[in-house]
Amino acid sequence: MDQKKIAIIGLGLIGGSLGLAIKKASNSYYIIGSDHNQTHKDEALELGLVDECSDDIERITQCDIIFLAIPVDAIIKAINGFDNISQNTTIIDLGSTKHKISTSIKDDLRQNFVAAHPMAGTEKFGPSAAFDSLYDDKILVLCDLEQSGEHQAKVAKEIFELINMNIVYMNSKNHDIHAAYISHMPHVLSYALANAVLAQEDPKEILTLASGGFKSMTRIAKSSANMWEDIFRQNKDNLITSIEHFDKELHYCKELIEAEKWGELNQWMQKANILHKIF
Amino acid sequence: MDQKKIAIIGLGLIGGSLGLAIKKASNSYYIIGSDHNQTHKDEALELGLVDECSDDIERITQCDIIFLAIPVDAIIKAINGFDNISQNTTIIDLGSTKHKISTSIKDDLRQNFVAAHPMAGTEKFGPSAAFDSLYDDKILVLCDLEQSGEHQAKVAKEIFELINMNIVYMNSKNHDIHAAYISHMPHVLSYALANAVLAQEDPKEILTLASGGFKSMTRIAKSSANMWEDIFRQNKDNLITSIEHFDKELHYCKELIEAEKWGELNQWMQKANILHKIF
Repeated sequence: MDQKKIAIIGLGLIGGSLGLAIKKASNSYYIIGSDHNQTHKDEALELGLVDECSDDIERITQCDIIFLAIPVDAIIKAINGFDNISQNTTIIDLGSTKHKISTSIKDDLRQNFVAAHPMAGTEKFGPSAAFDSLYDDKILVLCDLEQSGEHQAKVAKEIFELINMNIVYMNSKNHDIHAAYISHMPHVLSYALANAVLAQEDPKEILTLASGGFKSMTRIAKSSANMWEDIFRQNKDNLITSIEHFDKELHYCKELIEAEKWGELNQWMQKANILHKIF
Repeated sequence: MDQKKIAIIGLGLIGGSLGLAIKKASNSYYIIGSDHNQTHKDEALELGLVDECSDDIERITQCDIIFLAIPVDAIIKAINGFDNISQNTTIIDLGSTKHKISTSIKDDLRQNFVAAHPMAGTEKFGPSAAFDSLYDDKILVLCDLEQSGEHQAKVAKEIFELINMNIVYMNSKNHDIHAAYISHMPHVLSYALANAVLAQEDPKEILTLASGGFKSMTRIAKSSANMWEDIFRQNKDNLITSIEHFDKELHYCKELIEAEKWGELNQWMQKANILHKIF
């Protein structure tokens, strides 16, 4: 059988889980993994995340689909470094920000490119964090799809549907605003909460009492600082706006507590309870 | 066999799970459930959380152990309403704040009383939220134990060890400071995050993108507004201080982003990553 070739650049949680998911769903693809870290490549092969590892750029650019599962700043550099890409090649990034990437791809590759953001992840990273169900039944956002070629749009949809993702469409600008509220700013809060406790006189005694609530709230504070530095840089303005909106709610709550306006505080909490009806 | 009698006042998640856990661990106890809500009592019986339901105060106060699993303001009122309590009766509260409760019990009952806080819970409430493993291998804080009678301290330790809890000791003042950081303030953040998103123009479109991170961060925003109003009121001063400490971290982070001090931001996030080593 003639297998299609897929390259996955970046063999951490995101890239590795993608390899596993595709291999589990179909044997129509042969997957080449690439990573600047030799240990990651060894681990990825050992864990069966990919069929082979190669950093040979010619071999990679000749694949039918090239996935970029690397930090968002590196995505732009990597794609704009590609040469001799066939008209039929599909290049898909999996970064958390979309507008800067979508608008930074060089013109002669823009039709090859599809901007994607899988709404899936954990606080863990590296090849050993990968698992085959990470993407199962999760949301996949495709951005600015009208700028991708018809063939590329079709290929992207097919591969994400193959691994059972639920596709939604959005322009990259709106995506980045929404992602600030639903993902980027919550990461800031989690880091800030962890650091607020760690800055106390006796963090160990406090952390002894940590139960489900605190662990839920600080799980994503364990996320990779390098990855999130890039995301915060690329989505700086939306992130600041979303932090300001959060801050407004926090201060409203604090004022109600200080003024002992318990009835209003109760109503404010009941408003938040509405999430019960959504998920 | 002569069973000891336990009364559990309040048949929600906390009281109901306690009944299940004790019944699972031993058949030496007969459990009487009490709740001001008739539906809760019916449900509790149906779900087997308790052996019988009764609001007969004489029957309740004649039990060997009386647990109070009701909102923290109601705990004080309920205990101080008890009359004709035997010297050997043990009264244990399970509220999230401890100092006001510990210092508000009337003198003639203080030796009967043990102030306890199980570091366990979920965002769900009511009898149907109860499950038998809620307390398994979780932390149980006993406060101001030197003010409880020797017999009562022994009874409390035995029953919490029976359901496999890990007991730590603390004075109620320190408990409330720590609980503000590890539980109460994180609840404020979760409510504020939920409300920040719900206050946007298109919350539904944003919430479509919600994945694990956002769901973790807003899980406890689904918690009972009535229960948390009482906790926030009783721990007002510590809560405000802990919000201010969080706010300091949040603003430090925001300033670094605004000033594009990415290296310092990365270090700040790495500091939070230390939680990996703790749990």
